[in-house]
Amino acid sequence: MYDITGDIKENGTFLLNCQWKPEELDKILPAKAKRDLANKHVNFYIVDAISIAKSLGLGGRTNTVLQSAFFKLANIIPADEASEYMKKAAYKSFIKKGQAVVDMNYAAIDAGADAVVKVKIPAAWKKAEDKKTKAKALKGRKEVVDFVKDILEPVVAQKGDLLPVSTFLDRADGTSPQGTAAYEKRGVAVDVPCWNPENCIQCNFCSLVCPHATIRPVALPESDEEKVKGMKLLPMTGLAGYKFGVTVSVLDCLGCGSCVQVCPGKKGEKALSMVPAATQQKEQQYFDISYKYADNPEVLAKFKPETVKGSQFKQPLLEFSGACAGCGETPYAKLITQLFGDRMFIANATGCSSIWGGSAPSTPYTVNKEGKGPAWANSLFEDNAEYGLGMATAVNQRRAKLVEIITKLAENESLAAPAKEWLDAKDDGKASVPASEKLIAAIKAAAKGNKSREFASLCKQALAMEDLFIKKSMWIFGGDGWAYDIGFGGLDHVLASGEDVNIFVFDTEVYSNTGGQASKSTPTGSVAQFAAAGKATKKKDLAGIAMSYGYVYVAQVAMGADYNQCVKAISEAESYHGPSLVIGYAPCINHGIKKGLGTSMLETKAAVAAGYWHTFRFNPLLAAEGKNPFTLDSKEPTNDYKEFINTESRYSSLNLFFPERAKVLFDRAEQEAKEKYLKLKKLADQ
Amino acid sequence: MYDITGDIKENGTFLLNCQWKPEELDKILPAKAKRDLANKHVNFYIVDAISIAKSLGLGGRTNTVLQSAFFKLANIIPADEASEYMKKAAYKSFIKKGQAVVDMNYAAIDAGADAVVKVKIPAAWKKAEDKKTKAKALKGRKEVVDFVKDILEPVVAQKGDLLPVSTFLDRADGTSPQGTAAYEKRGVAVDVPCWNPENCIQCNFCSLVCPHATIRPVALPESDEEKVKGMKLLPMTGLAGYKFGVTVSVLDCLGCGSCVQVCPGKKGEKALSMVPAATQQKEQQYFDISYKYADNPEVLAKFKPETVKGSQFKQPLLEFSGACAGCGETPYAKLITQLFGDRMFIANATGCSSIWGGSAPSTPYTVNKEGKGPAWANSLFEDNAEYGLGMATAVNQRRAKLVEIITKLAENESLAAPAKEWLDAKDDGKASVPASEKLIAAIKAAAKGNKSREFASLCKQALAMEDLFIKKSMWIFGGDGWAYDIGFGGLDHVLASGEDVNIFVFDTEVYSNTGGQASKSTPTGSVAQFAAAGKATKKKDLAGIAMSYGYVYVAQVAMGADYNQCVKAISEAESYHGPSLVIGYAPCINHGIKKGLGTSMLETKAAVAAGYWHTFRFNPLLAAEGKNPFTLDSKEPTNDYKEFINTESRYSSLNLFFPERAKVLFDRAEQEAKEKYLKLKKLADQ
Repeated sequence: MYDITGDIKENGTFLLNCQWKPEELDKILPAKAKRDLANKHVNFYIVDAISIAKSLGLGGRTNTVLQSAFFKLANIIPADEASEYMKKAAYKSFIKKGQAVVDMNYAAIDAGADAVVKVKIPAAWKKAEDKKTKAKALKGRKEVVDFVKDILEPVVAQKGDLLPVSTFLDRADGTSPQGTAAYEKRGVAVDVPCWNPENCIQCNFCSLVCPHATIRPVALPESDEEKVKGMKLLPMTGLAGYKFGVTVSVLDCLGCGSCVQVCPGKKGEKALSMVPAATQQKEQQYFDISYKYADNPEVLAKFKPETVKGSQFKQPLLEFSGACAGCGETPYAKLITQLFGDRMFIANATGCSSIWGGSAPSTPYTVNKEGKGPAWANSLFEDNAEYGLGMATAVNQRRAKLVEIITKLAENESLAAPAKEWLDAKDDGKASVPASEKLIAAIKAAAKGNKSREFASLCKQALAMEDLFIKKSMWIFGGDGWAYDIGFGGLDHVLASGEDVNIFVFDTEVYSNTGGQASKSTPTGSVAQFAAAGKATKKKDLAGIAMSYGYVYVAQVAMGADYNQCVKAISEAESYHGPSLVIGYAPCINHGIKKGLGTSMLETKAAVAAGYWHTFRFNPLLAAEGKNPFTLDSKEPTNDYKEFINTESRYSSLNLFFPERAKVLFDRAEQEAKEKYLKLKKLADQ
Repeated sequence: MYDITGDIKENGTFLLNCQWKPEELDKILPAKAKRDLANKHVNFYIVDAISIAKSLGLGGRTNTVLQSAFFKLANIIPADEASEYMKKAAYKSFIKKGQAVVDMNYAAIDAGADAVVKVKIPAAWKKAEDKKTKAKALKGRKEVVDFVKDILEPVVAQKGDLLPVSTFLDRADGTSPQGTAAYEKRGVAVDVPCWNPENCIQCNFCSLVCPHATIRPVALPESDEEKVKGMKLLPMTGLAGYKFGVTVSVLDCLGCGSCVQVCPGKKGEKALSMVPAATQQKEQQYFDISYKYADNPEVLAKFKPETVKGSQFKQPLLEFSGACAGCGETPYAKLITQLFGDRMFIANATGCSSIWGGSAPSTPYTVNKEGKGPAWANSLFEDNAEYGLGMATAVNQRRAKLVEIITKLAENESLAAPAKEWLDAKDDGKASVPASEKLIAAIKAAAKGNKSREFASLCKQALAMEDLFIKKSMWIFGGDGWAYDIGFGGLDHVLASGEDVNIFVFDTEVYSNTGGQASKSTPTGSVAQFAAAGKATKKKDLAGIAMSYGYVYVAQVAMGADYNQCVKAISEAESYHGPSLVIGYAPCINHGIKKGLGTSMLETKAAVAAGYWHTFRFNPLLAAEGKNPFTLDSKEPTNDYKEFINTESRYSSLNLFFPERAKVLFDRAEQEAKEKYLKLKKLADQ
């Protein structure tokens, strides 16, 4: 994809990090690279930093290995001295993550220097010839294909600066087409999941938790079986006439392994395992086919979309985001798009979610087969709730106009019945869909038959507003830096307004995107920027504040701890005709989870088991029925609070640098967590 | 004060609103006015709109009477038509306040036209001669006197535009001296309170509630009795050797009568009554003398400053503000200055409190005999909490430096004891005062005796920071528009910070200064701008939100409902070494209290009795002792909620325009109030 040898100087040195052997390179390297290396008499080395890092326990972190290899080859300072400097630097950088991490890096420094392999460049490379391959025609909506060809491809090839301003004429309004991230196909994962049908119980957890939407179940009508020859399939449990398969987008997967972590498997054997990506390239075709079988009404009649399993038979309308591998935020957003994406607006606060949600030139928000997907926009860090309220107000105003028109049209006999049905259903997310289809069809038919000019004009006006018939799902997305701090004044104002908007907070307990500054969501004792000695004040009770209004739907969820509760809370929030706030616990690269971010789902589960996080729902509709609006979903904590927090370096590092303070703060944090649980328990029991 | 006849045209018409008789005018009018009227052959009329308005029940509202008189004299349109137009306009303007108010205005229109009296101008007025009076020398601090002479006097005489820019050179930093409002002496009250010692029980309530600090008790040493000949005095209850008097600043009083309203008197006879201001001019001298006897340590030893009675023997450091007569906000602010004003910083949010708190060119915040008073500033509407936190941070940083110096000085034997005493007491508002005095004196003495250069330098540095020895009382003032809405994000951030700042919210439940827009503090059913049909959502639970932090001192007070609780809450808030939030219920001109704003103290009492407002305190120190931090101070409501709200036109007007909606909203508001009480009761009982 990139021209990485073009800038090498005559007699320069080139080090390639790869898992290939020297003798494989002739087949693999592009002709341009071969010619550059040969003609410029380059000293060519390879190193398998990937395997070394993995074997040392560093996972995908190859930087230390490569740094050591670099110093070995560059020979700027004597090798011994370089090694010593690097080790000192590694200590400084990593001691806050524990001595074990430091030791791994020491080993990586030693290994990196020894692992470089000189490659002899064959003379034939001087005249290596480019393969004549036909440029693959891009498939998709014309708007997207044009955008990808004209803008995305040059920009991702780092040639964006060469584009003339005129290229952007069609984008002068600041919009860009959805679904462009799907054209990147970066193929960056070293290992990807491989499905073993034998151990699969068809739970769809793998798909639910995937941060990047790269693993999906397929419910294939048996009649189509021969169209997908070679695809691994199982008889589908609970739905006769269908086969079940799990497909992986090998080229989009980031290799976090979250799917494998949560796979329950059978008899202790998981149905998924991580295997080298190179072995799975042929699986891509089945993934590409999977789109065709998503959103099948017959499948969704059996497996309801508002369930964990059923939701995964709907196409995610957020796919292939560039979030950290294992990100705790994107699974929530992806799920929400599966539930409501085809009629959804999103106002997105600045922060991680605005970066993985819309990194120019590509966007992961996409559309379904009908061309429907979330309308997404980002304004500022400090005004996102207001921005979303503005979107909702605009939609409300425009729909009020539509209601006026339909009310008039209802006077016409031929439209009376469908108009009434629509007027009754218009504010119901589900019921408004068939009612809208019926009414639109009726108006189209009536417009043809009726000769009154006024009637024709009303029909025309109504049809011009076709996009407004179905109830919209208005969402406001943001992180805790926004919701608890910078945007809180607006968030509070929007909650107080009583308007029908839905707010989802990706709670990483820290400003994630800007490098980990403490927010008011950061709990006592957590180390963060601006709280280097551990935060001294406790986590703000955002849910409690929202509940104080009484007319706000409020929930706390933790996907990995309780999939069902998560789907239920999000569904209830969306259907509530008033403000809703759902706060989702989202593990983050800044937490320093010692087992790696690929275990983020297990981490949320552990957080709940230790009483670090609680899941609950506050539903004002229950209060209206005279019931207790508050339901505590998570059980009484069974695990040790301090043991849990010490599995994350954001806490454990405090023991290293401020052991006495750590004791005080961790004691207090544990006490606060206990008090929090008792408070919630009391709410639930009243 | 003003030249009001200078611009009259030849043969013009001049109408003067006054209570004088035609024959009294020769003695009363200034020579300049007489010459103008006579030489320009003016048609001169007088009207006693004050007496007419009062007799019709309009209180001080003379505008309708004067309007009618104007149309009678101007003769622009036939008198009958004019009357009809005026009555239509009066209906439109006042019907929302009820038919009774409309009827009063009808009567005023009829009366105004008939009440004008033509004055015959004596020929002698043509040559009326100015009295040769010596300009009274202004007393006070030079800085203030200069400011008053150079800036305040020209500006209040409406000649500010004539001032050259150079006049403001000394004020280029934006500061102005405190206490300038005392030089205005506007004399605008028609009636002022008159004290009848016979019925006085020396409770000091009159002084506590006075919004303008114009009525004050004096504890006079008997030895000084002959210095105040003619002053009404009583033997002082509970303090031998002292006489007790109540003094009134006749020229600063706004005539609201709040003091009379709250006076308990004896056997049903009040000790205060409102009488014509003209009869009380001689009382001003005793008020002027009262300053001398304020802050007397002997008196304050008997009557502690943190009590209702004792606090009133301290000089208010907020005096003669131009707030509405009867304002519900200023009594709180005034009390706070009596308690902590001599070591106090105030960051003031934009709103009414920034207007009565600092209306250029005068400011009501003032200093005591020692020259100590609140440092006051106003930044923006949206950043006041942050502004106040900045002030606190600056003081903390500077005091930290001082602690460093004193810690070094403590190594010197002669300073060891006083330095230790100060280091122990420095964060205690009370104890830091004597400790500071002692240490400063010791440093001054030590600096003379010791020859070490380093020691001398340290002493010099310490003495340069003399203003920082005493613990500062950091306050953040603002209304509900600021605290609940526009500044809430910052307020929440400051509360969460854990810093030692005190926040007082003047809760008028509406944006007062900008004309009555609904805020999130506005309760269900209240009519306001942006909520013309009554607010549909309930009052935000600001106290509940603040309590959710656990480490914030929180109180709700209502001065007129419980003086003691109010003083206690404010004292506790100030002494708490963390963030404090006190929310004070403040009746406002925008409430349309039917009995007039002079009854604002009774109105807060009625609000609490009806369960419309509750008083309570949440003290984190109690939680630390294992006790319930929450105390519900107000009793179970005994009066009817709806009856109460209908005494204010902000509610009752909804009955007129939207009677059905009023029923729904008032039912709901009553229900919400009940639920609120139960919630607080539960908190108190746990």
